[in-house]
Amino acid sequence: MHAYRTHTCGALRRSDVGQTVRLSGWIHRKRDHGNLLFVDLRDHHGLTQCVLDVSSPVFPALEAVRVESVVTVTGRVIARSDETVNPRLPTGEIEVGVDAVDVLSTADVLPLQVAGEQEYPEDLRLTYRFLDLRREQMHRNIVLRAQVIQSIRRRMTDQGFLEYQTPILTASSPEGARDFLVPSRLHPGQFYALPQAPQQFKQLLMVAGFDRYFQIAPCFRDEDSRADRSPGEFYQLDFEMSFVTQDDVFDAIEPVLAGVFEEFADGRTVTKPPFPRIPYDESMLKYGTDKPDLRNPLIIQDVTDQFRGGGFGLFAKLIDGKGAVVRAIPAPGAADRPRGWYDKLNDWARDTGAGGLGYIIFGAEGPKGPIAKNLEADRVEALRVQMDLKAGDAVFFACDKPLAAAKFAGLVRTKVCHELEMLETGVFKFCWTVDFPLYELDEDTGKVEFSHNPFSMPQGGLEALETQDPLTIKAFQYDIVCNGVELSSGAIRNHRPDIMIKAFEIAGYSREHVEGHFGGMLNAFRYGAPPHGGAAPGIDRIVMLLADEPNIREVILFPMNGQAQDLLMQAPGAVTEKQLKELHIKLDLPKPKPQAKTAG
Amino acid sequence: MHAYRTHTCGALRRSDVGQTVRLSGWIHRKRDHGNLLFVDLRDHHGLTQCVLDVSSPVFPALEAVRVESVVTVTGRVIARSDETVNPRLPTGEIEVGVDAVDVLSTADVLPLQVAGEQEYPEDLRLTYRFLDLRREQMHRNIVLRAQVIQSIRRRMTDQGFLEYQTPILTASSPEGARDFLVPSRLHPGQFYALPQAPQQFKQLLMVAGFDRYFQIAPCFRDEDSRADRSPGEFYQLDFEMSFVTQDDVFDAIEPVLAGVFEEFADGRTVTKPPFPRIPYDESMLKYGTDKPDLRNPLIIQDVTDQFRGGGFGLFAKLIDGKGAVVRAIPAPGAADRPRGWYDKLNDWARDTGAGGLGYIIFGAEGPKGPIAKNLEADRVEALRVQMDLKAGDAVFFACDKPLAAAKFAGLVRTKVCHELEMLETGVFKFCWTVDFPLYELDEDTGKVEFSHNPFSMPQGGLEALETQDPLTIKAFQYDIVCNGVELSSGAIRNHRPDIMIKAFEIAGYSREHVEGHFGGMLNAFRYGAPPHGGAAPGIDRIVMLLADEPNIREVILFPMNGQAQDLLMQAPGAVTEKQLKELHIKLDLPKPKPQAKTAG
Repeated sequence: MHAYRTHTCGALRRSDVGQTVRLSGWIHRKRDHGNLLFVDLRDHHGLTQCVLDVSSPVFPALEAVRVESVVTVTGRVIARSDETVNPRLPTGEIEVGVDAVDVLSTADVLPLQVAGEQEYPEDLRLTYRFLDLRREQMHRNIVLRAQVIQSIRRRMTDQGFLEYQTPILTASSPEGARDFLVPSRLHPGQFYALPQAPQQFKQLLMVAGFDRYFQIAPCFRDEDSRADRSPGEFYQLDFEMSFVTQDDVFDAIEPVLAGVFEEFADGRTVTKPPFPRIPYDESMLKYGTDKPDLRNPLIIQDVTDQFRGGGFGLFAKLIDGKGAVVRAIPAPGAADRPRGWYDKLNDWARDTGAGGLGYIIFGAEGPKGPIAKNLEADRVEALRVQMDLKAGDAVFFACDKPLAAAKFAGLVRTKVCHELEMLETGVFKFCWTVDFPLYELDEDTGKVEFSHNPFSMPQGGLEALETQDPLTIKAFQYDIVCNGVELSSGAIRNHRPDIMIKAFEIAGYSREHVEGHFGGMLNAFRYGAPPHGGAAPGIDRIVMLLADEPNIREVILFPMNGQAQDLLMQAPGAVTEKQLKELHIKLDLPKPKPQAKTAG
Repeated sequence: MHAYRTHTCGALRRSDVGQTVRLSGWIHRKRDHGNLLFVDLRDHHGLTQCVLDVSSPVFPALEAVRVESVVTVTGRVIARSDETVNPRLPTGEIEVGVDAVDVLSTADVLPLQVAGEQEYPEDLRLTYRFLDLRREQMHRNIVLRAQVIQSIRRRMTDQGFLEYQTPILTASSPEGARDFLVPSRLHPGQFYALPQAPQQFKQLLMVAGFDRYFQIAPCFRDEDSRADRSPGEFYQLDFEMSFVTQDDVFDAIEPVLAGVFEEFADGRTVTKPPFPRIPYDESMLKYGTDKPDLRNPLIIQDVTDQFRGGGFGLFAKLIDGKGAVVRAIPAPGAADRPRGWYDKLNDWARDTGAGGLGYIIFGAEGPKGPIAKNLEADRVEALRVQMDLKAGDAVFFACDKPLAAAKFAGLVRTKVCHELEMLETGVFKFCWTVDFPLYELDEDTGKVEFSHNPFSMPQGGLEALETQDPLTIKAFQYDIVCNGVELSSGAIRNHRPDIMIKAFEIAGYSREHVEGHFGGMLNAFRYGAPPHGGAAPGIDRIVMLLADEPNIREVILFPMNGQAQDLLMQAPGAVTEKQLKELHIKLDLPKPKPQAKTAG
């Protein structure tokens, strides 16, 4: 018989009754029922009820150890009586009558309980992460994460991708977020940086002819923590393909994402490929964001024409004088909400920085509210028809310059959906946002700037750059969005030095600037570069969605806390003078703050 | 038709003749045959010969661009005539008659050629790695690496392991090699460290109940470069299992290693599991190393008794006076080697630091050489019988204290095997070295010290520590060796704080020292720890063996050079004052060396 186990704690069934077995695991719970002691033995695979009589010679050993001690029990598999069968437990039809016990490791008094649902402060959980990870929900989340990544890997290789490892000790990048730096011992005064993403490496892989690359890639940004961003490191499904159009990228990754989400949907439905492809302009109009949450059924419309020169002077003046637009957000069935509801939404709007939140209520007796009082009746009716509203509905308005109106309308759309409890549940709704503008106008300076990613290929290539109004040029750039969460940006890259230099010139950068800052990539592109593109969906976000966890630390094994500390390993920590000396650095600590003078 | 390709450059066969196709790739070679221009077009998948007449309207476009430019060609698949079929090329039965060409990217004059076998200096290759990686051998090595890792992952999950990611920004470890440090921005004067290995995390995963962990884990050591060690980062197949004996670990990993090696053996044979398990003492005796290369058929024997008190005074005195032993290394068929061969081996032995290399030649006329002259004939004959030598063979001797004699005999074994060309080729021979001693005697101080890993479980547990002579205690520690290359150490870990404290006490460390240095792990073990063990075979070494590459940089995408520089990305590099300030550090550069005074 094996020293530790013949079966896992999740394995035994009614068909095993009568066998002599050995199990090892943690004592999850002990229940003393008079002359019987019940012990739930737990391992990675499950839970098995063990039972022994107080008269048993091994009773004192089990009695003496605390929960979470590790023991090996040997005994016979016994069928439970019908009334004691536990249908919620895979092993619930049997129990093990204990004949022998070996205590492998005893547990001290626990700082947090593993069994049960008790909440603990995050810092305590992270300090004792090895206990926290034994808890059912955390354990399940981490296993889910492992399975999700395994599934992604399988699906990517099925799509013809190969996984390559790119360097983690690399160069500081001049753009983007803040780098983590690593002082060099051999090169005094010089530093490595941890990669914010393997962006340059994956493009170099394409230039090197590898065709279809992916990597479950660790990325590092020295940025402050958020609920959906762990300080320090995070993982992305980094991928890149050569000789592809934008549609090829979508065709390659959609089955991977849809497949993974379906595999772990657990009853939830998932958008079937092809995912909707929503042009950026349309997305900003209809959803007020470039990350539309398609679970929200509300669609924004432009109703500027209904207000232009109309009786509602506030909007008419803004339209005329400031180039404002009016966006309308429907609120189906909201007509019977009390006045206070509208007032509260108005207060919420002011809190977001808007001037207020105008509305029209289509009551049984006709349109109501301050706007309806002032706007001509035929305009109100035209608006109702345009928005396809019925008696009993209402509509809200956002009036501002186009971008600001779109963004505020997007907030209102989300808020109204929430208030009316219209968000579809039990679904994962995917879409692509496509056709991002390459440039935008800085409203303060009046200058043309890159709006998103300067390294995306302009639609229409060099000719577009040379002939089109820059503000009308779209890029082959896209976002993949699920339930309003941006999983990734991506692009068909600009692989042509001539087009890149022209694109930067339009945004006001000289050839010298481009060569100076991005010379490495430009240089590589000068020795034969294929057209290529890709994206990098966030692994942590995918797992958060699937696990339905709003906090990223619930889906990471050993995360840092909000202050970028690993409380378990006590990182960061002090190092020795000798270490600093070897790395050719000294500390340069902030001066202690002057003490406030005490009275007296 | 797709914008870039209907087929890859490795896809077309005779059955495609007559089709109109589009291919994209790099111009590998151009050959001008009078009125015909042949262009080999290359992508990740292969090479296709394209052909066009000089009279073709697209000839000038192809004529004009340099090799390694990227083009799209459209044309008809044509069968090659029997005499022009290229049987070495999968596409060798066809060529593509080019009708249209689109130049996607032009190549400048190349700093190194992609086609052909020319050798280039390593620094040039690394500076233009994106070109170097296009070369056939490098490209194949990197694809092999990707496939090997993919195969390992599949085989590990088939064995019930799940892959979990452990932190890369973590704590400086007090033991082991030199850490890479990362200054903290939020915590002035404190540093993260990159993990030398996820050893503590994987043990914590076991304590957290995850049972079977693995990870293709990046590891970081700030150590100087060697042929088989890249400076900076390397990857290992890190794994750990709970509730296991040493045999369980072997049973789990042997099918993975044997399977991967068989999959990529390409005609070479691989040891079938179970792999030989060679106790450390036996390995040191028979092979003179704990990393035996079983392709070498020579077996060392102890022949001390044949020399003790015998006529060869040098050895007899060392045995008597210094506790020396004599180890014999057979040299089958070496009797007819000229005297100069033995002299050269003697010189080589002196170069390694030995006093010389004694030998007996069993010639047709009987034993020969200085030792045979002095040692009694019956002893010489007994030695010949013990070593199972025939006329025509020879034997070499190593006489020294046991460890030194063993090591020198191991060197001689390797040298003689090489000289006699006896190394078996076309095989991967695996074995385990087991039963490492837990302690050894420091010959200078006379103190008992840990010989390898202080965290391995002693065989016999606490009782062995309390009752046995420490120098006789073995640990559950093992090495996995392939063709004399150590792929990994591993161990059943010591999960019991009481046994750990006792083990350190024997090596002269107080309880306070252990708590101070290893308190984190000890603390975790106090809340219920399962018995567990594992290992961490080196990925780079596995790929080096399979690719038959002696230099680790041939199996890594973007390695650093011997001076720990990434010549392509120019890392390490300078950073700004602002970055240093944010990280609360200053440079502490070595003083420039004083200039030598110039005459005058």
